[in-house]
Amino acid sequence: MKIVVIGATGAVGKAVVEQLGQRHEIVTVGSSSGQYQVQFEDEASVRTLFAQLGKVDAVVVTAGELHFGPLHEMTPEQFRKGLNSKLMGQVNVALLAQEYLNDGGSITLTSGIVGQQPIRFGANASTVNAALEGFVLGAAVELQRGLRINVVSPTVLTESLPVYGPFFHGFEPADGKRVALAYSRSVEGVETGKTYKVW
Amino acid sequence: MKIVVIGATGAVGKAVVEQLGQRHEIVTVGSSSGQYQVQFEDEASVRTLFAQLGKVDAVVVTAGELHFGPLHEMTPEQFRKGLNSKLMGQVNVALLAQEYLNDGGSITLTSGIVGQQPIRFGANASTVNAALEGFVLGAAVELQRGLRINVVSPTVLTESLPVYGPFFHGFEPADGKRVALAYSRSVEGVETGKTYKVW
Repeated sequence: MKIVVIGATGAVGKAVVEQLGQRHEIVTVGSSSGQYQVQFEDEASVRTLFAQLGKVDAVVVTAGELHFGPLHEMTPEQFRKGLNSKLMGQVNVALLAQEYLNDGGSITLTSGIVGQQPIRFGANASTVNAALEGFVLGAAVELQRGLRINVVSPTVLTESLPVYGPFFHGFEPADGKRVALAYSRSVEGVETGKTYKVW
Repeated sequence: MKIVVIGATGAVGKAVVEQLGQRHEIVTVGSSSGQYQVQFEDEASVRTLFAQLGKVDAVVVTAGELHFGPLHEMTPEQFRKGLNSKLMGQVNVALLAQEYLNDGGSITLTSGIVGQQPIRFGANASTVNAALEGFVLGAAVELQRGLRINVVSPTVLTESLPVYGPFFHGFEPADGKRVALAYSRSVEGVETGKTYKVW
């Protein structure tokens, strides 16, 4: 399979590339790194990316920014950060991928444990992650030509503890290697409309 | 209690006003009807509304538009309709309400069955409704001064069948009167961070 990984140089993306690269041709994409670049918040940039790549068998997105901060001082503008980046970025890719995927291809998005297990300063993350899981549920029932869509909800990665650890005291982390298995299951499996929890 | 109902003249809003109006002072708000008007997609308009109303004990939102249409031709721009209206409208109200609610007050939002039970043409609705449930989960753990937040997820209303019936073949509808009980439970109960399903 020819598999595009958007967010390929992040902690999750790297592990996914390593796992799926053992058996498939991987195209790595990032905002400033990887073989191709995309600003996935921007529909035109996503369209340009797919036009460059041609037909593919699977699209994996492991990218997206969120706003973390106290609820009592959170502004609507701050809140839009996660909607514009992690949510609409992934939705843009999924909507446009419909045209560029081969029959039977798959889309795999990334939510996160905070969509179902709240943390301090995480209202934006809970919203966006839950939204992505809702999107996958709603989109799966309408995809044509045997296309599938799933989302992986990882807990905090062991590799990300230096940065995100303070938000996740008491949460059991998972190694990138274990998280990557869920992406393999989505891409190489048969299900659609699923949230694969790695926690 | 002094309770603000935003979306008071919609099918759900009317039933909520009737239920809560038996015991409380209700302020009705709509985009073009009701005692006060608000364009809740616009932060400034929400701020003006709360400044006019002064302190309140509960805020209920039963408003918000979504995009319904086939996934294979859905554009990011169409998809943003639900994010800008139903999602950010309700989030704007919830974020700003923190300043205007009396101690122990409550915020009650509205999602919908499609957040968990997908329908044809409903990818935007599934996303936005799930997002609102995620928001409530994430916000509840941080609200201060005993403030609470919940969301009601109604099935299709009996009163709305003439308009939405064709999207919901096989779904059991609920009368507005029954749906309104969930809002009463949120406003007059003790829980927070809950999704009250009426289905």
